[in-house]
Amino acid sequence: MFESAELGHQIDKAVYDKEVPKLREALLDAQFDLAAAKKFEVIILVGGVDGAGRSETVNLLNEWMDPRHIEVHGMGEPSDEERERPPMWRFWRVLPPKGRIGVFMGSWYSWPILDYVYGNIDQAAFHEKIERIVSFEKMLVAEGALLIKYWFHLSKQGQRKRLKALEKDPRTRWRVSKRDWAHFEMYDKFIDADEQALRMTSTAEAPWYIIEGSDARYRELTVGNILLEALRKRLDEKDGPVKAGHVPPLLPSIDQRHVLKSLDLSRRLSKKAYERTLEEQQGRLVQLVRDPLFKEISVVVVFEGNDAAGKGGSIRRITGALDARQYQVIPIAAPTEEERAHPYLWRFWRHLSRRGRISLFDRSWYGRVLVERVEGFAPEADWMRAYGEINDFEDQLARHDTVVVKFWLATSKEEQMRRFKEREQTGFKRYKITDEDWRNREKWDQYERAVCDMVERTSTDYAPWTLVESNDKYYARVKVLTTLCDRIEARLAERRKQAKRQAAKAAKAKAKAKKK
Amino acid sequence: MFESAELGHQIDKAVYDKEVPKLREALLDAQFDLAAAKKFEVIILVGGVDGAGRSETVNLLNEWMDPRHIEVHGMGEPSDEERERPPMWRFWRVLPPKGRIGVFMGSWYSWPILDYVYGNIDQAAFHEKIERIVSFEKMLVAEGALLIKYWFHLSKQGQRKRLKALEKDPRTRWRVSKRDWAHFEMYDKFIDADEQALRMTSTAEAPWYIIEGSDARYRELTVGNILLEALRKRLDEKDGPVKAGHVPPLLPSIDQRHVLKSLDLSRRLSKKAYERTLEEQQGRLVQLVRDPLFKEISVVVVFEGNDAAGKGGSIRRITGALDARQYQVIPIAAPTEEERAHPYLWRFWRHLSRRGRISLFDRSWYGRVLVERVEGFAPEADWMRAYGEINDFEDQLARHDTVVVKFWLATSKEEQMRRFKEREQTGFKRYKITDEDWRNREKWDQYERAVCDMVERTSTDYAPWTLVESNDKYYARVKVLTTLCDRIEARLAERRKQAKRQAAKAAKAKAKAKKK
Repeated sequence: MFESAELGHQIDKAVYDKEVPKLREALLDAQFDLAAAKKFEVIILVGGVDGAGRSETVNLLNEWMDPRHIEVHGMGEPSDEERERPPMWRFWRVLPPKGRIGVFMGSWYSWPILDYVYGNIDQAAFHEKIERIVSFEKMLVAEGALLIKYWFHLSKQGQRKRLKALEKDPRTRWRVSKRDWAHFEMYDKFIDADEQALRMTSTAEAPWYIIEGSDARYRELTVGNILLEALRKRLDEKDGPVKAGHVPPLLPSIDQRHVLKSLDLSRRLSKKAYERTLEEQQGRLVQLVRDPLFKEISVVVVFEGNDAAGKGGSIRRITGALDARQYQVIPIAAPTEEERAHPYLWRFWRHLSRRGRISLFDRSWYGRVLVERVEGFAPEADWMRAYGEINDFEDQLARHDTVVVKFWLATSKEEQMRRFKEREQTGFKRYKITDEDWRNREKWDQYERAVCDMVERTSTDYAPWTLVESNDKYYARVKVLTTLCDRIEARLAERRKQAKRQAAKAAKAKAKAKKK
Repeated sequence: MFESAELGHQIDKAVYDKEVPKLREALLDAQFDLAAAKKFEVIILVGGVDGAGRSETVNLLNEWMDPRHIEVHGMGEPSDEERERPPMWRFWRVLPPKGRIGVFMGSWYSWPILDYVYGNIDQAAFHEKIERIVSFEKMLVAEGALLIKYWFHLSKQGQRKRLKALEKDPRTRWRVSKRDWAHFEMYDKFIDADEQALRMTSTAEAPWYIIEGSDARYRELTVGNILLEALRKRLDEKDGPVKAGHVPPLLPSIDQRHVLKSLDLSRRLSKKAYERTLEEQQGRLVQLVRDPLFKEISVVVVFEGNDAAGKGGSIRRITGALDARQYQVIPIAAPTEEERAHPYLWRFWRHLSRRGRISLFDRSWYGRVLVERVEGFAPEADWMRAYGEINDFEDQLARHDTVVVKFWLATSKEEQMRRFKEREQTGFKRYKITDEDWRNREKWDQYERAVCDMVERTSTDYAPWTLVESNDKYYARVKVLTTLCDRIEARLAERRKQAKRQAAKAAKAKAKAKKK
């Protein structure tokens, strides 16, 4: 979920200086239209890790926008007045009216996350609170509000660096408190809680925008751009009932940096190393599948990737090691008539296998946010809500002892061209290349954007994406197989621990019963 | 929530015999159109207490509808096959395709409710599961499904009677199991769980229909009517994107029985008895407000009722006993411009007072489902979602130690006329009667329907409605005051118990610490 916000995004001073004046003017224009029309209000949430630029962003918005129509609320400890009302009262009392912008730093997310991280509430209670937020935000949107949620992220090292830098400078030293360092020590816990909260509340109508917080210029331009696009999109919509269908835009990264570009596609493996490692990893997979505990889990493997990236080859290197009763390969093409007559995910649910098996999906439910998005087969509101629905789906799998492994096989555009041509020239491979492949290639950039959004919005701790550098097939196949084995091994180890704990508990209970 | 389903609804055989053939024909027509258009699927959930007619309803639907396009799923214990997949798999696999009807007896609600009632999971975990259902149903509706949820209810006595009757008849004896009687013993726990589940999942797009289960003819006609109206409404909608705005209809009770009609409006109190009791109850209120624990709670009182039903008079009998610093009266008229620029509930949130006070709302947030519904000020989708939003709002109040007391002051149409005329003739009361009052009166029946739906959908255990027979002002005022005192007293007693428990716990901890 935070992959895209750990890439070291940054913007040159020259670019920044060129872009900002235009952006500010456009923002003021939009704000003026907003105030004149008074058709909806804008609620901006500013959340994220300490030191990632939350307060700077709030200051910036204050500086850039017309102060007559914007109001900033730094929500710290509740006052006496506030404590005597239900917790949401302090937010209700300062909600902006239509035509205005309200910025919340420290929002309705703060306390549930803190309570969970501090261990005051368990996961179910945490989720209950988060679900109440979902209802609240759903109401705001149904009542017409435009809700923009920014989350500023820093990697662990990034946060340490940032806090140290703030401490070193006498002008900013006061900003770093003991609490900030205490929270830094709990970084992993916070990230876990943040991810859960963000995932559950990133809806089609009010998605989170996760922004890397280390470079101020990148942060500022990104914040401004998103706000501008969201405002303009909503202002320019035709009249009609408010309600559903108002979906804020997803934008490409302004510095052109993204998770796919950050891959080192030159990685390769010699044929000799490939053959040795392949055999080794296939042997490992065989052992894992024979583990008695393997009968208690399932494995779902998703293969997505550029056309001709080698999905089929990778799948065969897995199935080659297995007995036919242990796996199924499910190729996903255009839906059948029967499938189209059901909710989107139905055609994937139907293929879920029993425990003790590996299901390999050659393309998958991600079609909705890839091909259906790019080709316009699904309306925006539908593919926007699909991110959340997919996360829910995979969450149900993971809770039911399923290891969910997802691969994106990435090639360069040049390598794809080489393979297309090769296929055209090789008789038995000619069937593998179609006009559609060439058409898809023309939309390379759009697919790339869709992939980045997909990774950002559906890579979760229980079902993370693995991006596979696939210009070299040898390297790719080995990475796929190794990752798969690692994930299964980790789950079996977890399971073993669980079984031990249970056995110990049972033994203890038995001993106690005997004593009596 | 179950008030309307404990009124002893029933339908004569003659009426039933006359209505059923028409209904069946219309249902078959609608089903034919559904199958021909294949635009959406229908998912019917059949839930409720044991013995309230669930299986009879399912049989009935099977009998009435064209069996080629309907499929019934009695979901009992999951099979081995099913247990090896995530719990929702068994439902996904049998979801009906577009054009068809799927009936589920024993649905995704069964296990969460059982787990909670049996004490396997706590309330937060229960709510988490219920929220997952909300997401699932939201997805179904967004994908185009028409979701109709029937809940069959019996009062405790009703259930006992029904189970005994089934046991007595040799033909039906087999249907009553030990488990049914065990569940009967847990009736109150079930009702508590049912209410929570129904409240949280009764959304605008998929509201629950709660149906009294004791009279088979009433049950069958009601089920058939709702299905027919919902089908027709959806079939007759103009084309366009599926999605939000498809709201199933709320229908009036087919036997004309409802909570307002069941009131005995002839109740009265002599002037002498009134004066004595009034003084007594006012004294009681004074004592309650002086209780030191009263500083830790708040009280919110809602007054709704027919025009000229005596809301103002009742309020004055309460405030008359209090010091001005202890209460505030909030008259709710048409919203101001500022209020209209905010989400609907904003204008009520802003008036919430600190602890230790009583807030008296002369009309309230229920305007949305009363006047705004009847006069068409709010579109259907908006007032339909208001039930859930209001329940959420009051839940937040109740969780924050607020006693929420809601009165509907009911007069007969004749008594209202008498008072209108009286007001017109009395100089100083003339300002109290306006053209609007006369106009509202013309919509008496529509208001009555709106009130019944309101009571059914927003009477919760934490914020129940009290219907007040108000043809006699003396009787009404005393009932209001007594109910208010009862509710405050009960909450203070609860609070006292809590404080004692906490003190005991603290003392124990202290003793333990000393020992060490």
